[in-house]
This record gives sequence, structure tokens and C-alpha cells, in this order.
Amino acid sequence: MNPAAVANRFSEAARVDIDDLGVLGKIRVRGMIANHDRPSLEYAEATQRKFAQIGIHYELLQVERLALETAIIEANDDPEIHGIFIYFPVFHNEQDSYLRNLVDYRKDIEAGSIYWTRKLYNNDRLVDGDPSRKALLPCTPLAIVKLLGEIGVYAKDNQPLTGRTVTIFNRSEVIGRPLAIMLSNDGAKVYSFDVNGPMLFVDARPEEINISRTQALEESDIVVTGVPSADFEKITAGEIRPDCVCLNFSSYSNFDEDITHRNRIYIPKVGPMTVAMCIRNTLRLYRNFHHDS
Amino acid sequence: MNPAAVANRFSEAARVDIDDLGVLGKIRVRGMIANHDRPSLEYAEATQRKFAQIGIHYELLQVERLALETAIIEANDDPEIHGIFIYFPVFHNEQDSYLRNLVDYRKDIEAGSIYWTRKLYNNDRLVDGDPSRKALLPCTPLAIVKLLGEIGVYAKDNQPLTGRTVTIFNRSEVIGRPLAIMLSNDGAKVYSFDVNGPMLFVDARPEEINISRTQALEESDIVVTGVPSADFEKITAGEIRPDCVCLNFSSYSNFDEDITHRNRIYIPKVGPMTVAMCIRNTLRLYRNFHHDS
Repeated sequence: MNPAAVANRFSEAARVDIDDLGVLGKIRVRGMIANHDRPSLEYAEATQRKFAQIGIHYELLQVERLALETAIIEANDDPEIHGIFIYFPVFHNEQDSYLRNLVDYRKDIEAGSIYWTRKLYNNDRLVDGDPSRKALLPCTPLAIVKLLGEIGVYAKDNQPLTGRTVTIFNRSEVIGRPLAIMLSNDGAKVYSFDVNGPMLFVDARPEEINISRTQALEESDIVVTGVPSADFEKITAGEIRPDCVCLNFSSYSNFDEDITHRNRIYIPKVGPMTVAMCIRNTLRLYRNFHHDS
Repeated sequence: MNPAAVANRFSEAARVDIDDLGVLGKIRVRGMIANHDRPSLEYAEATQRKFAQIGIHYELLQVERLALETAIIEANDDPEIHGIFIYFPVFHNEQDSYLRNLVDYRKDIEAGSIYWTRKLYNNDRLVDGDPSRKALLPCTPLAIVKLLGEIGVYAKDNQPLTGRTVTIFNRSEVIGRPLAIMLSNDGAKVYSFDVNGPMLFVDARPEEINISRTQALEESDIVVTGVPSADFEKITAGEIRPDCVCLNFSSYSNFDEDITHRNRIYIPKVGPMTVAMCIRNTLRLYRNFHHDS
């Protein structure tokens, strides 16, 4: 499976919706990057091109990290701007969480601020209980769910992952925890690992559990990794089932080469799909909060 | 200086205010602890007794950490509860920040949620611009400012720390960063260190700076430490000025024994003062949001 091709399909669908809504070229997003390294900047520019292709005006601003707080407040207050995208990490500590939450939820296309996370955790799918205004889901977890949906592990059912076991290595507030909630909400039994140990999610509820990495992997139909460290002991073919679906969203590959090189279902990155989900979210925000008719 | 005695004085002043307001015994706070270790529980019980002495009803609940999210939402929704106190750390990761922000700001006696932090960072001192409703400041930074005020380093002035240099080891969103903002707002030049290096705060604005620990300490009139790790290289008498004021708010002492044992101005902990500031904040919340007249 080619994540970029799937992403393009979703982006094109968004383009049709934007056209139908009669707002091609009218939606304005401001991306802000406080990072000087070349790969980050290239990723930012790629995002910009993708939004432009879909018919969304995307202005990319380079700001000093100490100017970012003020820049976010300005973008929040600017009625001409409908969406805000921040390239994290910036400070590599809790201050990033502060900045993420500083973005007005009505412009938060990544849906990483607490307004949207809270809705997800409380299974509140609407804005102000209005059935015409659907809640947003965080981009990267949503991208992962959609990619898994593409490869046939999802049944066409109300609880499409019933009977499936998933292990996730990452329990961040931005990706790992929301993803565990979303997959368990779809019926999966989810083992979640981070440096503080394992946790089990069933029906969108966390439980304390004592299970080893080995046991969890033996049981898993799907393994998702997002450990941004070269120190993580890579997952080898011997640890997982032969038919296991593997997905890595870390900038490091957390799977051994014997998995990534073989003819397995291995999704090496979700970046393009994350951008597609941000486009989808941008449209949803515009409909919910910035469109009059 | 005895921090506990100073704390008692502040608490007594709050008791008088509560009496004047005619609400002795009417304010209800719910404390929640999701921690089974003996010292944490003893601290929680001490907090409870202190609030009770001041005439505030303080109900202490022990909850499992996975039940804390729901327990916070219940306390938020309960009109009989006017204040909420959570004993952190709980999960020792970003989830703690999520929980901190889940507390309704109108009940957040620690003032650690983003509503209050944002006011501090934007120098917005009122609730909804109403001069009769003053904004809250986060408990521990406020406790530190008040303790420093007790020992004569503050001038009776509009900018009482003008000409003073402060070094802080800790730039957390809950204590170190707000403290740097508050002290620099009072006129101090503040060097702030964390694992990502130093930063300078002047007039409540951060600036990038390249300075060594040695240089910063040599220049400092006040040194504040809050590094919760035994690995931190303790500050020795040789590194600081003879008349330097030292304050430690970490559970570890970050100062060498040659400082803590000598006849210096050394404040070894702020816990009692933090509780006193929480009491003060509780009263302020009650006046702002829960009192009719």
C-alpha cells in the first residue's frame, strides 16, 4: 500500500467538497514554523504546496520560537485566517503543549488542543450538540485509522475491529493516547506502551495491566510504533505474527529491517496522510465556524 | 526565616477575609489524590487540616489514577464544590498536563490551568475586564514571590526588583516559567535554566541567551532551584555570592550542605506557603465566581 496515493485520494475528495461548497481559494490557513533545519522546512513547504493544490490558501511564516506565542495570538484574532498549523516540536518541553493549547480551537486544524481532545475522550461527537457541526479528530491518529482502514483490517461493521488486538508504542497526548481511544472505540483490544509501562484500552477506557512487550506482540494483529529515539529496541520479525500489520509513525523506524524489507504489510510513515487529514479538518472547521450559509 | 510561620500569617489573613465575607465553613474544596505512597498522603492530609483550620471545608478523595479524569469532570459539574485541588504528579507525563487543564478554571485553586497561565503571560490582571474580579496567580510561583518579599530583597517600589539578578533552575510551565515572568515583571533580570539550556527574561519577555551556569550564578542576588533529580550537580558556596539568597522548591535539595548548613538566607522548601497561597486563591475564586453579593 502506498500511503501517498491514499492521501491523494482523500485530498482530492476534500477538493471536491470545497468546490461544492463554493469556497475554492477562499479558505485561508496560516502555517508557522520556528525551526531552521532543512528537512523541517522542506516538509513545511510540501504541506504548503499540497494545500494550494486543493484550493486552500496556505501562508507559511517563519518565526523565531520566542515570537511564536504572539504570532499565534495574532492569527487567532485575525478574522481573515480560518486555520492555523504549527510545526512541532518547538521547545521540546511542556511549553509546546502550552502553545498547542493557545491555538483557538475554531482554527486548530490539527485538532490537538484540549477542546478537541476532551471531546474525543468524552465521546462527544458534535460541536455544541449541533448535528450539523461534527467534532474534529486529531490529524495523525485519524490518518493512522484511515490507513489501517485501507488495508482491510477493518470490517464493515459498527465495531469494525472487534476481535483484533493492537499494540501501540507511544502514549503521547497528541498521538498515542487518542489513537488507543479511537481504535478501542472501534472494538479493538489495545495495549499501549510508553516509558512508564503498559496500559490496556478496551471500549475507549484505560485499564492498568501487567504485560510484557513479548506477550503483547505475540497477541497482536496490528503493531503501531511512534518512538522518536534511536535507543528503542527495534521490533523484529521473530516477535510478531506472520500476518501482523505494522505501521511506524516515528521519524525513526522502530521496526527491524527484516520486517521493513519483506513482503509484509508495513506502512513506514503517515506524513502525507496526516496532511490529507489536516485538509479535511480545515474544511470541517470552515463549515463549523467560518461559513455563513 | 521560617516559611511555615510566614505561611501561617498569610493563612490567618485569609481566615479574617473569609469571616468578613460571612462565609466561614461555607466554601467547599475537593482534593483528589491518586497516589498510594505514605509521604504524599501525609502531605495531602496536612493540606486538609490547614484548610479546615481556616474555615474551609476540604474533602480529600483517594481515587485510582485512571478514575481521576471522570472524578475531575464530576467535581467540575458539582455546584456544591467551589474549588478543586489535584495532587501531581499522577502519570508523570503529558497526561498530567491534560488533567491539569481539565479542571474548570473557576474552581482551579492552584491556577495551573491554561486560562490563568495565559492571563499571566499576557499581563491580563482581571477576569473579563471586571476590576472587582482579580485574576489568580499560580500557587507555587506566588508562594516563592511572597517568601522573597519577606526577606527584604524586594524594594517598596513599582518595580521592586530593579537592579537584581535572579537565576532559576527549572522552566516548567507550572512553576519555573511563570516564576521567571513574575520576577522579571517586578524588575529583575532573570536567567532561566532547564535541560534545553539557558534563557533570559527581562520585563516579562523571554530572550535567547548564551550564558554558562557559572556566569549566571556569579551575577545573581537570588538563586531559585527546582530540579527534581538526584543527578543535578548541587550548587556550592563557591559558585554564588556571599550574600546570595537561596531558595529550593524541589523535593531534592539542589544546594550543597555548605550552603544549607551555614548562616545564610536559605529557604529550603515552599510547601506550607504554597498551601497558604492555595487558600488565598480559593477565596479569590469564591469571590469571583461563586458568591452572589
